[in-house]
Amino acid sequence: MTDTIHVALTDGSLELHSDSDAPWAVSSDWLRDNCRCAACRHPGNGQKLYAIVDLPDGLHVVTAVIDPDQGLQVRWSDGHVSSYTPAWLRDHALSDAARSARRRSTTLWTRDLLARLPMADWPALLADPVAELAWLEQYAALGFGLLRQVPCEPGMVAQVGDRLGFVRITNYGRLFDVKSVPNPTNLAYTAVGLGVHSDNPYRHPSPGVQLLHCLESEAPGGDTLLVDGFHAADILRREDPAAFALLCRIPMNFRYADASTELQARQTLISADMDGRVCAVHFNNRSADWLDAPAAEALPWYQAYRAFAHILKRPELELVFRLDPGDCVVMQNDRTLHGRTAFDPGRGRRHLQGCYIDGDAMESRRLVLRRTRNP
Amino acid sequence: MTDTIHVALTDGSLELHSDSDAPWAVSSDWLRDNCRCAACRHPGNGQKLYAIVDLPDGLHVVTAVIDPDQGLQVRWSDGHVSSYTPAWLRDHALSDAARSARRRSTTLWTRDLLARLPMADWPALLADPVAELAWLEQYAALGFGLLRQVPCEPGMVAQVGDRLGFVRITNYGRLFDVKSVPNPTNLAYTAVGLGVHSDNPYRHPSPGVQLLHCLESEAPGGDTLLVDGFHAADILRREDPAAFALLCRIPMNFRYADASTELQARQTLISADMDGRVCAVHFNNRSADWLDAPAAEALPWYQAYRAFAHILKRPELELVFRLDPGDCVVMQNDRTLHGRTAFDPGRGRRHLQGCYIDGDAMESRRLVLRRTRNP
Repeated sequence: MTDTIHVALTDGSLELHSDSDAPWAVSSDWLRDNCRCAACRHPGNGQKLYAIVDLPDGLHVVTAVIDPDQGLQVRWSDGHVSSYTPAWLRDHALSDAARSARRRSTTLWTRDLLARLPMADWPALLADPVAELAWLEQYAALGFGLLRQVPCEPGMVAQVGDRLGFVRITNYGRLFDVKSVPNPTNLAYTAVGLGVHSDNPYRHPSPGVQLLHCLESEAPGGDTLLVDGFHAADILRREDPAAFALLCRIPMNFRYADASTELQARQTLISADMDGRVCAVHFNNRSADWLDAPAAEALPWYQAYRAFAHILKRPELELVFRLDPGDCVVMQNDRTLHGRTAFDPGRGRRHLQGCYIDGDAMESRRLVLRRTRNP
Repeated sequence: MTDTIHVALTDGSLELHSDSDAPWAVSSDWLRDNCRCAACRHPGNGQKLYAIVDLPDGLHVVTAVIDPDQGLQVRWSDGHVSSYTPAWLRDHALSDAARSARRRSTTLWTRDLLARLPMADWPALLADPVAELAWLEQYAALGFGLLRQVPCEPGMVAQVGDRLGFVRITNYGRLFDVKSVPNPTNLAYTAVGLGVHSDNPYRHPSPGVQLLHCLESEAPGGDTLLVDGFHAADILRREDPAAFALLCRIPMNFRYADASTELQARQTLISADMDGRVCAVHFNNRSADWLDAPAAEALPWYQAYRAFAHILKRPELELVFRLDPGDCVVMQNDRTLHGRTAFDPGRGRRHLQGCYIDGDAMESRRLVLRRTRNP
C-alpha cells in the first residue's frame, strides 16, 4: 500500500502506473464517470446526479497532477475538476495485474471439507455480529454454511430465512415440507435417493439460496450430499474445455408443471463471467425438459452433459453428512448442489422444512458488518 | 400441421424431415432423453425418473418406424422402446427453419403505442379469466401493462402484486412510497425528473417486475415515461453492432449503499440469448458504480454506453402518459425502462406506491390460463 502512483499526460491521454504495476491508459469517460465530487454523486447514497449523455462529447483531460498523499487531480476540458485518492486509484486500477489481484478468491472444496464444516450455533450468531460475520464470510467463500441449535419448531426455517434475508414466496408457499408422502407430486417428497442438483432451475430467477431445516431424522439413511458445482465445472474445463464452453453457451429448457403451475426457464448448466470465472451452475436432471439447440450441436452438448454429470458423481467431490434435528443447511443454490441418500420411511420419520431467500441480502449484511470491523 | 414426417436410419443415425422442412440429424442421446414413457418420466408432473448417466454409453437406435398418425417408434440398443407423436416431433424439431419459426415474437413498440395502451380494469380482470389471459398476453408481448380501477388505498399495490405473483420483499420493505420527501436517501423520492431506467440493477437477482400504483397526482408534471429497452437495443445493434456486442459482453458494476445496506451487482446493459435475441436490458445511470474491464476496453465501452443512452432518449421511442389515481403500471423490469418528468411538489401532491414481484408466476399463470383455452 506504499506504492507510489505515477501519471503521464500526452495530448489529453492519461496513463497511470504504480511502482509495482505496468502502465495502463485511462479512458477519459471512464475517469470522469468515477468523479466522486458532491456535484457528480449524492454525498449520502453515492448515486450519480447526471446522465452519461450530460457529459460533453470529446471530453478530455487538460491538466493532471498527482501527489503521493492527495492523489490525482484532473482539470477537464469542460472546466470541471475531479480528485481521486491514492487508495481509490489502487482499488480501481484497470491494469491486468490489478484486475487479476482483485478477483475474489473462491475456495473450492471436496469431501475433505467434512473435517471443518462451516458451522455456527444459531443463538450465538444472533447474539454476536462477530460470529455472524465469520459465518457469512465462510458462506461467501464456500457457497454454503451450517447452522446448529435452530429451534425444532415447524415454520422456524422461514424465521431464519427472514433473519438472513427475505423469504421468497413461490408456488410452493413460504416454506415447504420435505418428507415422504403418498402420491407425491414431486420426487423430493418420496423416500428415494436424489442425485445432487440445484433447486428450481425452471424458475426465473431461480432461487439464490435454499435453507433446509431438520425437524426429525429417525429414518435410517437420508444423509445429505453436497457437491461444489464451481469445483466440478472447473474440473470439466480442465478435462474437456470444449465441453465446458458448450455448457456455458447453450442452455437447457427446464420445466415444472402441475394443475395450477407451468414454470419454464432456459438456463445454461454453467455460467462464466467475462473473465472466465465460473459464476453459476444449474443442474437438475429431474426438471430438465428438452434441449432446443441447432441439430448439429445436440450430440456434442449431450456428450458434455454426460461428462459433467459423471464429474458430479465422483465420490471425492461428495461431502456427506447427516442433518440432526435443529440443524439447518444454507446453500447458495447456483453453486452448492445438494442431494440425499435413500431412506427407509418404514423405520422412522424424516422431516425437513425448506425455504428460499435471495442471496443479495446476505451479501449486503456481510459487507455492512465488514464496515463495522474496518470503519 | 398436415405435414408428413419422414425418417431415415443409417448405421444407427436417425434423420428426420417433414415435407416442408430440410432433414436434420437426430442425436440419439437427445431423442432418448425426450422419451415420454411412464418409466422415463413421472406421468403426473413430467419429472425425469433417471439421471443422464443412467443411459448406457454408445446408446443407438436399432429400429425406427414412422406412421403418419402414430408418429415415430424407436427401439434402442438397450432394449427400451420410445414413442414420439407427430405433434411432438413437429413442436421440437431442431432444423434451422423449425427453430426459427418457434421463436416467440416480441412486439417492439414506440411512442405510437399511446393509441392502444395495453390496459385492463382490475375488477374485470379479477372476475374474468378470459380478460386476465388477454391482459397477460399483452404484457408478455409488450413488456408492460396498465391496470385501472385499482382501489386508491395505501398498500393495495402489494395486494395486486400478490394476486399477479408473489411480492418480493427487499431492504425497501414489502412496498415503497414514491413521493417528494425532505432529505431523500434516493433520488426517486425527490421532485426532479428521472431518465428512463430499470430498477435495482445493484440487486442480484434484479427485480423481475415492478408495479407502480398511483394514489395521488395533483402536482403538475410527473408524467410517466416508458421506453422499450429491447427495441432500443435492437436499434443499437443495427446502427453499431460492435457497440451492441460490447454491452452484451462487459458488465457494469452497480451499487446502492445506505447505513444498513450495501448492495453490489454486475450486470451487462444488454443480454442476448444463444440465438442473438435480446433477452434483458439493465440501465440505470444513478446506480451505475464503475466499470471493471481491461483498460483497453474502457474507451470503446463508454462510447457504446453513450450511444445506447442517446438512443434511449429519442423522443420517438418515449411513451408518455399520465397515471391517474387508481392506475397501476406493471413493468417487466429488464425490458421496459421507466422514468418521469419533473413535477412541482409546491402545487399539489404526487404519491405512488410500488412493489416488486418475480416474473415467473405471471408467466406461469398465462400458460395455465392458455391450457384452459386450449385444453
